[in-house]
Amino acid sequence: MNIFSIDLEKQIDFMLELEKLKSITRKTKPVGEPNRYENSAEHSWQICVAALIFAPYADSAIDVSRVIRLLLVHDIAEIDTGDTICFAKSDGGGFDEEEANAVERIFGLLPDFQKDYFISLCREFCANQTAEAKFAHAMDRLMPVLQNLFNDGQSWRENNISKEQILNKAFKIAGGSNFLWKNIERRIEEFNL
Amino acid sequence: MNIFSIDLEKQIDFMLELEKLKSITRKTKPVGEPNRYENSAEHSWQICVAALIFAPYADSAIDVSRVIRLLLVHDIAEIDTGDTICFAKSDGGGFDEEEANAVERIFGLLPDFQKDYFISLCREFCANQTAEAKFAHAMDRLMPVLQNLFNDGQSWRENNISKEQILNKAFKIAGGSNFLWKNIERRIEEFNL
Repeated sequence: MNIFSIDLEKQIDFMLELEKLKSITRKTKPVGEPNRYENSAEHSWQICVAALIFAPYADSAIDVSRVIRLLLVHDIAEIDTGDTICFAKSDGGGFDEEEANAVERIFGLLPDFQKDYFISLCREFCANQTAEAKFAHAMDRLMPVLQNLFNDGQSWRENNISKEQILNKAFKIAGGSNFLWKNIERRIEEFNL
Repeated sequence: MNIFSIDLEKQIDFMLELEKLKSITRKTKPVGEPNRYENSAEHSWQICVAALIFAPYADSAIDVSRVIRLLLVHDIAEIDTGDTICFAKSDGGGFDEEEANAVERIFGLLPDFQKDYFISLCREFCANQTAEAKFAHAMDRLMPVLQNLFNDGQSWRENNISKEQILNKAFKIAGGSNFLWKNIERRIEEFNL
């Protein structure tokens, strides 16, 4: 293999493009770090670990390794769209136009065989039909609830979110694990907001 | 299953303990973000994606999913030790005492069956004997080199690292992929430090 491979140039460009996800801020602050908001890169790492930790509670047989791959890529399109992707507009569906453009541009930096694979992961996550996608969504919803429960409801208070709204949004946890949902539902209900 | 499970309490405590990895800073700044150093959580995410991207160049047959698990946990002990773990003292060996205490405390928050599994992942990474651990180390070394190559050698300059030191440290890439190493070696040699 020629060491000046065009594929490798593309892959390096892609890896450097990913630097930008470290600048995409979310609404949640790390517990114990009140002076900044967390970014989507560190959040992605944490919920991958969460998938390993909470996998025993999944309602369906899941391939945890594929759950982790879905979570590794699930926020990458935010480099172009910001922290709104997929949850607001495309729940249960495919990509909306902005999201389609984002994944096309970002994963289009890769060689074709990898571009197609990564876009298929994004599509599976957003469509939220497979057991793995549902469990991935559960992790993505669970973690900010835990952060808020132990951070005096920081992002809930800052954004004037009602308990009903919290419960409605967190209900996606039930799509991955009814046990986790029942536990978290109780914690939210008992939280002094 | 009782929804007030003791195991789940432990797992939630562990997930919240992981918040602290978001405050462990490294010596590299994200490319394009000159006002802060990256943290070990976002770095961990990025090199997991790198493992997926660069896996085709691995010299040995590897289970990429296990590489990713090694990378997800490889820096967690830094919560107690800071950003020095495993590279300075224990290359090729097991844990040193500080590291052993760190993994015991942090993963000791988990139920026993998960504690043992996660410590085994940390041990495999640090021992650096399996093909998966070697490829994981290669990703851990590759990414900061790429950042420096495209960031005017930021962490190299700030820490007065010589080209020889860079090459010596980056040589671990060769343990995972000779192709990647040959390419990166050339880039480092041609870099204007």
